[in-house]
Amino acid sequence: MKISVFRQVHFNAAHRLHNPKWSDEKNKKVFGKCNNPNYHGHNYDLIVKVKGEIDPETGYVIDMKYLKDIIGEHVSDRFDHKNLNIDTEEFKNLNPTAENIAVVIWNILRLKIDDKHELSVRLYETPRNFVEYDGE
Amino acid sequence: MKISVFRQVHFNAAHRLHNPKWSDEKNKKVFGKCNNPNYHGHNYDLIVKVKGEIDPETGYVIDMKYLKDIIGEHVSDRFDHKNLNIDTEEFKNLNPTAENIAVVIWNILRLKIDDKHELSVRLYETPRNFVEYDGE
Amino acid sequence: MKISVFRQVHFNAAHRLHNPKWSDEKNKKVFGKCNNPNYHGHNYDLIVKVKGEIDPETGYVIDMKYLKDIIGEHVSDRFDHKNLNIDTEEFKNLNPTAENIAVVIWNILRLKIDDKHELSVRLYETPRNFVEYDGE
Amino acid sequence: MKISVFRQVHFNAAHRLHNPKWSDEKNKKVFGKCNNPNYHGHNYDLIVKVKGEIDPETGYVIDMKYLKDIIGEHVSDRFDHKNLNIDTEEFKNLNPTAENIAVVIWNILRLKIDDKHELSVRLYETPRNFVEYDGE
Amino acid sequence: MKISVFRQVHFNAAHRLHNPKWSDEKNKKVFGKCNNPNYHGHNYDLIVKVKGEIDPETGYVIDMKYLKDIIGEHVSDRFDHKNLNIDTEEFKNLNPTAENIAVVIWNILRLKIDDKHELSVRLYETPRNFVEYDGE
Amino acid sequence: MKISVFRQVHFNAAHRLHNPKWSDEKNKKVFGKCNNPNYHGHNYDLIVKVKGEIDPETGYVIDMKYLKDIIGEHVSDRFDHKNLNIDTEEFKNLNPTAENIAVVIWNILRLKIDDKHELSVRLYETPRNFVEYDGE
Repeated sequence: MKISVFRQVHFNAAHRLHNPKWSDEKNKKVFGKCNNPNYHGHNYDLIVKVKGEIDPETGYVIDMKYLKDIIGEHVSDRFDHKNLNIDTEEFKNLNPTAENIAVVIWNILRLKIDDKHELSVRLYETPRNFVEYDGE
Repeated sequence: MKISVFRQVHFNAAHRLHNPKWSDEKNKKVFGKCNNPNYHGHNYDLIVKVKGEIDPETGYVIDMKYLKDIIGEHVSDRFDHKNLNIDTEEFKNLNPTAENIAVVIWNILRLKIDDKHELSVRLYETPRNFVEYDGE
Repeated sequence: MKISVFRQVHFNAAHRLHNPKWSDEKNKKVFGKCNNPNYHGHNYDLIVKVKGEIDPETGYVIDMKYLKDIIGEHVSDRFDHKNLNIDTEEFKNLNPTAENIAVVIWNILRLKIDDKHELSVRLYETPRNFVEYDGE
Repeated sequence: MKISVFRQVHFNAAHRLHNPKWSDEKNKKVFGKCNNPNYHGHNYDLIVKVKGEIDPETGYVIDMKYLKDIIGEHVSDRFDHKNLNIDTEEFKNLNPTAENIAVVIWNILRLKIDDKHELSVRLYETPRNFVEYDGE
Repeated sequence: MKISVFRQVHFNAAHRLHNPKWSDEKNKKVFGKCNNPNYHGHNYDLIVKVKGEIDPETGYVIDMKYLKDIIGEHVSDRFDHKNLNIDTEEFKNLNPTAENIAVVIWNILRLKIDDKHELSVRLYETPRNFVEYDGE
Repeated sequence: MKISVFRQVHFNAAHRLHNPKWSDEKNKKVFGKCNNPNYHGHNYDLIVKVKGEIDPETGYVIDMKYLKDIIGEHVSDRFDHKNLNIDTEEFKNLNPTAENIAVVIWNILRLKIDDKHELSVRLYETPRNFVEYDGE
């Protein structure tokens, strides 16, 4: 009997979509306004889902406070109020699309969450554009 | 390694739930206020989900602008500010319940999105009533 | 010492913007898609604001259940799942723009709420388009 | 061909997280502020998902009014404006974590919904903390 | 030239509406389900509005971090995960209606915010029921 | 008899809070993470309010499509997917706090909207931090 628990957090960051192997012209054509050389930014909303069995002692799948804390330490503190392209190691050589950010966050959190738990992340770049990754 | 991307759009339409093979009495009993002969309407919110592999060149599963444009051309422009029962071919002989609208939209979009991508649609008739269809 | 209390309700309706004194061409030019002869519709969200003094016996400005009930009886039941242009007396000769609907609702509720209370209504036609009227 | 329909309802309740087999100290350490002996409370939002085939006569998977009514009778009326720990049978000996509340609600609704339909519930304790259970 | 800045915070609490000068019967009649002797609860959302001139050095009316901190210290920490009727001094002899909670919070914050600034608070008891108080 | 109409739009931008007359140390102390030299960003939500009399011919205070278009041309197109500090004239010598952005937008729109109409703007930097300016 498994149940999923979800925790939502947010962080604000600047980014720019750009492929350094392409000409400026092609970057502009493919990424449009998102290629602006001086960056733009978003209020990212992240929902982390952890699926597992309920511990009969606590009634919890996982302590939500612990989950909140590891997301804070390993995701929010790393990306909040940052320029993803410049200020982070992860996106120095990786285009910070919503897809790639979600995969990076999933890989970070997978190391911090017990293997017996399934993990999925949903990332809202805007309320109308979002992505979801579960490692499969 | 697959990831899902989501794009939300909205359209406003009038509709009426009605089964022409039934008596007025039975229609009224089954569909209640939704059977009002002069129609009522909704702000429909549609979330389209496309699942696939990330293109390493772009960092995209699918260009969100392309996705937005085909939803606009083939769904929003067709249904927005329309009376679904009268102004559309799709619902002349099909009851425009949220379920049927979702299936119709899925069938329209399936033809426009590459077969390598999985497709799912979620349709909100109101914030409290919604449906989801993935073609299975 | 005055405080405002707010109650939100919703109703779904079809409507069409049209001025019968104008040509079809002018109606189409001014009202665009909203002039569609077969109607379109919305999930309307209505927020009613009542301002007054707190009754020291109850701690209420006005009983929220009473407020909910008079909005239900005199507004929701009258407009919900209706075609505003056809099914209501109020809009047979009045263009059902958000502005006019808000004024009509304010006039209806003003008669039902004690004169010692100030009244204001906010009406969302969509989450992005809304109006507010306080009778002044 | 199966489709999912969702209905959202809400209820307000008080609760306290507590394991009677533990010392006060351990309860305080594990459950933190949620262990407050005098209770705290939430506006719970519940989304019930029913998956099945569309009835060709109605265009419905399940009559949403029926779904709303059984949720109202068997869930909202039982838990709304209640103290979960004191006023309900279900949580007299079960810690009312979001996980356990979701499982209890799923078990209640499973008995009321036709076996041919799949059932899942999502329960929001706050907009940022929520759980989902589908019986598997 | 004055501008308003707003900061939203939330807290979860249990409460019960009750007038000790009335009979149980009258309490039940007036307050309905909200009179439940064992309490119920809410996720309260509080929006604090401060109006004043923009400091040309900072571009701020008031440092939002300072505003967040004083709301946290004097409001959230005092009421979050508490039983308003039992755990707080403010509501031991005052019925914790949304109206009275808003006035109490306004009075607390008025002492902490510079007199040159206007102050208003909006308190959501649920997304559909809320109140607003500006001290006038 | 006056009524207010509101139109919401959004734009995404990067910015940095910084006072060039101050030391780096003081900037860091006052603006904290918002002073990050490489910028961060937001999804800004802008609500424009126009108050005036209802035109009896149209039932409109102002044509919402016209309002949407002038906001698009003079605000969204100017600021969307831009770095406010670098890519705009307005914030080259003005700190792009939410307060200052709101005043700039109000000044831009005031020139485009008929003097007979009152104008107010509300700007959300995040869902929890926002400002409002009406020119007074």
